[in-house]
Amino acid sequence: MAVYTEVDDDELKAFLSDYDVGALLSFKGIAEGVENTNYLVHTEAGSYILTLYERRVERADLPFFLGLMEHLAAAGIACPTPIRTRSGKVLGDIAAKPAALVSYLEGVWVRRPNPAHCREIGAAMAGLHLAGADFALRRPNTLGPSSWPGLVRETASSADTVAPGLGAEVATTLDELTRAWPSGLPTGVIHADLFPDNVFFIDGRISGLIDFYFACNDALAYDIAICLNAWCFEPDAAFNITKARQLLKAYESVRPLAGGEFEALPLLARGAALRFLLTRLYDWINTPGSALVKPKDPGEYLRKLRFHRAVSSASEYGLDAR
Amino acid sequence: MAVYTEVDDDELKAFLSDYDVGALLSFKGIAEGVENTNYLVHTEAGSYILTLYERRVERADLPFFLGLMEHLAAAGIACPTPIRTRSGKVLGDIAAKPAALVSYLEGVWVRRPNPAHCREIGAAMAGLHLAGADFALRRPNTLGPSSWPGLVRETASSADTVAPGLGAEVATTLDELTRAWPSGLPTGVIHADLFPDNVFFIDGRISGLIDFYFACNDALAYDIAICLNAWCFEPDAAFNITKARQLLKAYESVRPLAGGEFEALPLLARGAALRFLLTRLYDWINTPGSALVKPKDPGEYLRKLRFHRAVSSASEYGLDAR
Repeated sequence: MAVYTEVDDDELKAFLSDYDVGALLSFKGIAEGVENTNYLVHTEAGSYILTLYERRVERADLPFFLGLMEHLAAAGIACPTPIRTRSGKVLGDIAAKPAALVSYLEGVWVRRPNPAHCREIGAAMAGLHLAGADFALRRPNTLGPSSWPGLVRETASSADTVAPGLGAEVATTLDELTRAWPSGLPTGVIHADLFPDNVFFIDGRISGLIDFYFACNDALAYDIAICLNAWCFEPDAAFNITKARQLLKAYESVRPLAGGEFEALPLLARGAALRFLLTRLYDWINTPGSALVKPKDPGEYLRKLRFHRAVSSASEYGLDAR
Repeated sequence: MAVYTEVDDDELKAFLSDYDVGALLSFKGIAEGVENTNYLVHTEAGSYILTLYERRVERADLPFFLGLMEHLAAAGIACPTPIRTRSGKVLGDIAAKPAALVSYLEGVWVRRPNPAHCREIGAAMAGLHLAGADFALRRPNTLGPSSWPGLVRETASSADTVAPGLGAEVATTLDELTRAWPSGLPTGVIHADLFPDNVFFIDGRISGLIDFYFACNDALAYDIAICLNAWCFEPDAAFNITKARQLLKAYESVRPLAGGEFEALPLLARGAALRFLLTRLYDWINTPGSALVKPKDPGEYLRKLRFHRAVSSASEYGLDAR
């Protein structure tokens, strides 16, 4: 939630002169996005987001991310559409950073999702999975299971300072998951970070999905597992079965689960909880106190992980097998 | 440049329900304003700024600030207009902070003002001074000369860590100014913080003046002196006489200076430089390294102060007496 890079008026005007968006009217650095710098830009043609890609985003990945947004938007998914310059480019440079101009999506993210919001995100995620099927580019999940051993190693020496016994608990979970991680599930493009702050609503309906900068190719059901973690727990860490049912039912109304996906959910959810626990732990340990962005509490995902480790089958969640 | 207070979607919707602005479409915390938290809010009726007043703004001063903006806007000055609730209120509460919704002004502040920008700000400032003449409320300048001895005392022990000899230089300047500070100049409502980042331009013309949270009653020429400091120096601390001439000439085209104002400019400019040096010095010394807002360099105003101390008459600036 920070503006890492200041853009000045003259360089923004020069940047925008390559686009058919009319004259610049105003721009404000906005406190959104942990990885990148974002400006909300008003021009004569409307509202846009200017994103400057900071060091945590690989420049080589940008054609995948921007191409995916363009592909999904063309398929009718409400997501930011990269704006092309007159010469057809979607990626430029400003203030010595790679940068892109995308359409602005109205909508508000819900701080306290209810079951109806979970139904909406279930259906929208399934629509995203279907629309991504014919996207040509590929990107591996750099925060998938193959990355976890490295994260476990890098956080091992400090994990117990966050919670006693955490290092051992994480190592054990990694072992369990490495042995049992499901293979052969249907794969495709997943968002991989479809948390409530990346989903905009107007009047209870989804108006936009944003922040595709973790999107990758992976098991589609893993995206569902991420959402079960992100949308279906209460602030006191209790799993809300009503929300999970709504999410899954709505998902299946658009894309019915294939064989094995439903049964794999507990393991996938455990893996998703471990992934966010590990990255939050890493940030917790490695973020200086003076940082602009305060790291998120790893404890939230430790509690979720413990919940999933106590579940052995999807029906134990209270979900109905199809 | 920070969002100090997070507003959630439900509380913002409840807050906005008192206003005739249609439904909430989106809102983003923006990285502007050092003292307050600002959100750019889109509703069905248009764009607005929601300002949450943080601890450095006195609640008792808010009727002056908001009333002034309303008064000036009604007089045709391009400034944020406070929006009234259906029951006629301009001040509300959100997230346990006093808050106001004001109109959004398009425009971009110029990082590198040129003489034409200085001409614009001169004329706009004079218009502001004329329009403020019949504003009924009054507010003393809490950062005027009477506040300087206290600031000098509070920064005395650390001033020399910023620049050797600074403590003595500041104390000497305070003595000089206390003895010579002009009295009897025309007074009225001044902006008192009309820096380039508070002035928006579109196509080279001023589209808005913002941030009235230092506005007060004081000598009108002191506002000019603040602008000479804020607009008419180059990044290398050289005084740009062309810019100063344009500013003053344009000011006088709207409000001719009265007797004594022109002659008082060097002392007023020295005082204005001391005021910003002192508050920057105070913030420099008292801002923890972990703060969201990095303090501004006091050195810039030390160099400006030294320049003004070497000037004994307004004509030495190269300005033409009227």
